[in-house]
Amino acid sequence: MGHAAPGIWDADPSEGLRVRPGFVLADVDTDSTPGYSGDKKTAVGHLAAGAAELDRLQEMLFANSRLGDNRKILLVLQAMDTAGKGGILRHVVGSVDPQGVEIAAFKKPTSEELEHDFLWRVRPHAPSAGMIGVFDRSHYEDVLIARVRELAPAEEIERRYDAINAFEQELVDDDTTVIKVMLHIGTDEQKARLQERLDRPEKHWKFNPGDIDERLLTPKYREAYQLVFDRTATDAAPWYVIPADKKWFARIAVQQLLIDALRDMELSWPVADFDVEAEKARLAAS
Amino acid sequence: MGHAAPGIWDADPSEGLRVRPGFVLADVDTDSTPGYSGDKKTAVGHLAAGAAELDRLQEMLFANSRLGDNRKILLVLQAMDTAGKGGILRHVVGSVDPQGVEIAAFKKPTSEELEHDFLWRVRPHAPSAGMIGVFDRSHYEDVLIARVRELAPAEEIERRYDAINAFEQELVDDDTTVIKVMLHIGTDEQKARLQERLDRPEKHWKFNPGDIDERLLTPKYREAYQLVFDRTATDAAPWYVIPADKKWFARIAVQQLLIDALRDMELSWPVADFDVEAEKARLAAS
Repeated sequence: MGHAAPGIWDADPSEGLRVRPGFVLADVDTDSTPGYSGDKKTAVGHLAAGAAELDRLQEMLFANSRLGDNRKILLVLQAMDTAGKGGILRHVVGSVDPQGVEIAAFKKPTSEELEHDFLWRVRPHAPSAGMIGVFDRSHYEDVLIARVRELAPAEEIERRYDAINAFEQELVDDDTTVIKVMLHIGTDEQKARLQERLDRPEKHWKFNPGDIDERLLTPKYREAYQLVFDRTATDAAPWYVIPADKKWFARIAVQQLLIDALRDMELSWPVADFDVEAEKARLAAS
Repeated sequence: MGHAAPGIWDADPSEGLRVRPGFVLADVDTDSTPGYSGDKKTAVGHLAAGAAELDRLQEMLFANSRLGDNRKILLVLQAMDTAGKGGILRHVVGSVDPQGVEIAAFKKPTSEELEHDFLWRVRPHAPSAGMIGVFDRSHYEDVLIARVRELAPAEEIERRYDAINAFEQELVDDDTTVIKVMLHIGTDEQKARLQERLDRPEKHWKFNPGDIDERLLTPKYREAYQLVFDRTATDAAPWYVIPADKKWFARIAVQQLLIDALRDMELSWPVADFDVEAEKARLAAS
């Protein structure tokens, strides 16, 4: 599966950014660009070129689904505030035909949702055949904020890791390529981005006083993320930690993960399941 | 509400393409570009410029929704096969941040859906506050294909027009701007587009033998559309018929309808509902 785009990546991000046994979040430099020796300017060009390829590959995936291919992709996006999930959605996912994308944003659970198991609200959003599904936050909040803010008993949190692994294995068994991404932003860069939201009135709507409350809990969140990686970085559904201080790097990295996943499918245009010449004759007569 | 972009449109498409009492579908030239004196080349430039404006306006709508503004847009797309719905989704809707778009594609109803009233499957897809919702086909199929292929008794079809008007009035009362578009393609142009799908193997997946069956029923569909316009072109939820032989025209026309609807909302960036200076101090201390 080593297939980094020649000349763009020195090391395939599907390998270089992947969480392996022994991974230590605290060792990751949030300002680094592992595997990529280009700069912001080259990244802009690579993002544009990758957008066209990603769009074409997804269309091919969708085309095959019309003839019974059940494969699909699920991209799980997790991050602290301001780390750039929105930018990934806009600039990476947004380059794909919107008919081929299913985005589910998981916010604070409603009282109805809280009456059910934590996966109850997630399951209906598993992507359909031929689609790129994206979870903007996800069931991982139920072991992240739920752990940090003690929203559930400790033994329930413990149970959830296994439940998550079982759920994701189900998705994989249903022909889903699961790509789990944590955008990892540094505290200084986060401060600068929050400052910008406060300095610019047209950005005020993106700011919530709760963002600073969360920021103050960053050490606890990082502990919770480390546990997530320790418990749920499986062969079936791997995690990727992407240094996110440089937005341009995070974007080309996530894009490349998607492109690699689609390339691995070795897609081609599906063969017609009807008699082409007969249909041409019918059309001519119509 | 007359606000055609100066220099682009000779006549505001919100007016010029709108179905008014006495409208006759058979009088529309599918190859025309009403209100627009540019050509394909100028349209490409206008589409790009409009994309940026549409994206910005939708973001402003979304921003306001975070602070309680309930407004949203619903674009209903109806058309015969190959008329260009997919291109509208890709090239017009696709230029908006995907987080601000909700697309619902209505295909042949499932047996479960058929056990309910025809609006049962539609209601859950009414767009949320701040969003541009798009129906790719819609409840109108229940008075179009349902009429042409006699999938429901005549009196049930009759009942549905009123039910549709009542449903759409509900949406409008819930602060939804409803924009109903029929992309109107000519039979010759449709034949050419179907031919292309048959001639190019990578397009075969887009072709379905049923497309020719439907094509043969074009006169009956046009009668059914005329009835739709007669019965459901309301002040609350207007119809627009867009000549669609020229893809570039259909795209800038739909884009302009969306832009006009958003301009009519007279949006501005919402004012912060928190104490900006206090938050700056908290951030500095964090």
